[in-house]
Amino acid sequence: MKKLINAPDAVVADALRGFEAAYAGRVKVDHELATVYRADPPLLGTVGLVSGGGSGHEPLHAGYVGHGMLSAACCGQVFTSPVPEQVLTATRRVDTGAGVLQLVKNYTGDVMNFEMAAEMAAEEEGGLEIATVVLDDDVAVENSTWTAGRRGTGATVFAEKLAGAAAEEGRPLADVAAIARRVNENARSMGMALAPCTPPSAGRPNFTLAEDEMEMGVGIHGEPGRATAPLAPAAEIAEQLLAPILADLPFSRGDQVLTLVNGMGSTPLIELYLMYGEVARILAAHGIHVARPLVGNFITSLDMAGCSVTLVRADDELVRLWDAPVDTPALRWGR
Amino acid sequence: MKKLINAPDAVVADALRGFEAAYAGRVKVDHELATVYRADPPLLGTVGLVSGGGSGHEPLHAGYVGHGMLSAACCGQVFTSPVPEQVLTATRRVDTGAGVLQLVKNYTGDVMNFEMAAEMAAEEEGGLEIATVVLDDDVAVENSTWTAGRRGTGATVFAEKLAGAAAEEGRPLADVAAIARRVNENARSMGMALAPCTPPSAGRPNFTLAEDEMEMGVGIHGEPGRATAPLAPAAEIAEQLLAPILADLPFSRGDQVLTLVNGMGSTPLIELYLMYGEVARILAAHGIHVARPLVGNFITSLDMAGCSVTLVRADDELVRLWDAPVDTPALRWGR
Repeated sequence: MKKLINAPDAVVADALRGFEAAYAGRVKVDHELATVYRADPPLLGTVGLVSGGGSGHEPLHAGYVGHGMLSAACCGQVFTSPVPEQVLTATRRVDTGAGVLQLVKNYTGDVMNFEMAAEMAAEEEGGLEIATVVLDDDVAVENSTWTAGRRGTGATVFAEKLAGAAAEEGRPLADVAAIARRVNENARSMGMALAPCTPPSAGRPNFTLAEDEMEMGVGIHGEPGRATAPLAPAAEIAEQLLAPILADLPFSRGDQVLTLVNGMGSTPLIELYLMYGEVARILAAHGIHVARPLVGNFITSLDMAGCSVTLVRADDELVRLWDAPVDTPALRWGR
Repeated sequence: MKKLINAPDAVVADALRGFEAAYAGRVKVDHELATVYRADPPLLGTVGLVSGGGSGHEPLHAGYVGHGMLSAACCGQVFTSPVPEQVLTATRRVDTGAGVLQLVKNYTGDVMNFEMAAEMAAEEEGGLEIATVVLDDDVAVENSTWTAGRRGTGATVFAEKLAGAAAEEGRPLADVAAIARRVNENARSMGMALAPCTPPSAGRPNFTLAEDEMEMGVGIHGEPGRATAPLAPAAEIAEQLLAPILADLPFSRGDQVLTLVNGMGSTPLIELYLMYGEVARILAAHGIHVARPLVGNFITSLDMAGCSVTLVRADDELVRLWDAPVDTPALRWGR
């Protein structure tokens, strides 16, 4: 195993130390509870947004903490859910009286631990108002290694951005939660791997692929997809990713979408630009209009090679919320 | 070879098609000459900035075209210099009467082809005013496979940003060139690889490393470094990268620096955060103040694994130019 680390069991703590040093003006880190907070104090009466999950998907979630996006991100160990105490503490700290929205990717451990924290927070004296939206946009498989139902992937980035923008506008919890729910209902994703990833604690790749194979529909922890398929040119890979996405919602001619072509962690940007070209060509042929594209590493799987595609059917309000100012380590514009 | 491509000889053209689709509002692409231009017309009387080089280092250079940075980027084939015709055409097109600054990484082919284009542009009737700054910040080796003298690496990102900000202010060519020269004189870099990269046309890794080895001082095309060394913990790797950087300028207690911890292309962000933590710790121990940190993939080497560190000793003017608004595919803030 070749990694820029000190020791497998210190990866998350060491990375959070570096993250805090790099983004000191924008975030604060509670190292004891491995949780990242906005550095600026939350505006009284605005909804708090808490997300989190296993580490290894950087910049998700800590990279999305800041103005116009998350209030806090709870970091689990690599590919391991944060514990309820992390989520409970973060939920308490970001509440300003307007309640807290939890954004949770659909993995059994995450859902359970966020739920437990929400229950504990609600049961406290003068209990907090909590809403939870579970993201489950991955069309690849119905159930998976760590999931009942569909897995949550790229839609999370959009839910965090758009709900964050709504919260920044001072809208009430029900509204902010409704935005996140609308994102999830209109989002579909699918991923593929050219090569597996190596979790530091395991020290070896978490699945195997022959030199002429790819995993179509892979999960963000290397969970098996729909099929181990023969390696194909990028144009064909784009077709194989988009066909199930388009059929599932279904997306229709005339739809306006937000589009993410996402790298899995060790995919060079030149390949992601190229993949975006193939995706854009197919969407144009289907009469689907890309309102806002996003190309790069936004929800990764350690050093997995490959990519995923996410489409979000977006009305004008969602596009407007996408364009709203954001100032986080990983997404930044308008400020 | 596993890549998200259609064919090895179509990679650059296909990627530029996707790049144009993804950043349509910000850039225009001349596909015949593989050159990326700002979409907004240049302000009359402002200096034009042209850079470029072999592809495979994305987002460099095309990702830095836009407000507050480059006017044009000439894209060569992978790891191959752009030809003089590309540079000459770009130079002519971005001139608004205030002259053009060429920013060139120190590789023999790049230097030769930019020089040839500059001579041709200057010799034309009513010839353009051209200044050229060659970047050579890599302290690893004195001469290398494709270079006489030191190689140009991470300083390029800073030279493009800071000279671009100066050009945007309407400063004359001599001033804008002086900023780029000041960046280069005060910048030092060193890189390392955990694993080689695979140029698409070759189809196989461009060097080899054993499972317990790393290449210390590697070039951005996989050129040999100072030594093939035993794999080490991140804290030690950071020491090995920073010691020659700090000794070379030399940097001194009390210096203020811009700092880049850069991924080589297939290094996960969690490892770059972690490396930044180690770099920040060492700099603090040396009494060197990081004014602005940058962590991520900014000058890559296809799918090479590893990282590089760049320090730029920066006076307050350089820091101010760093903070100036920028709106490019890869760097964006303040707008």
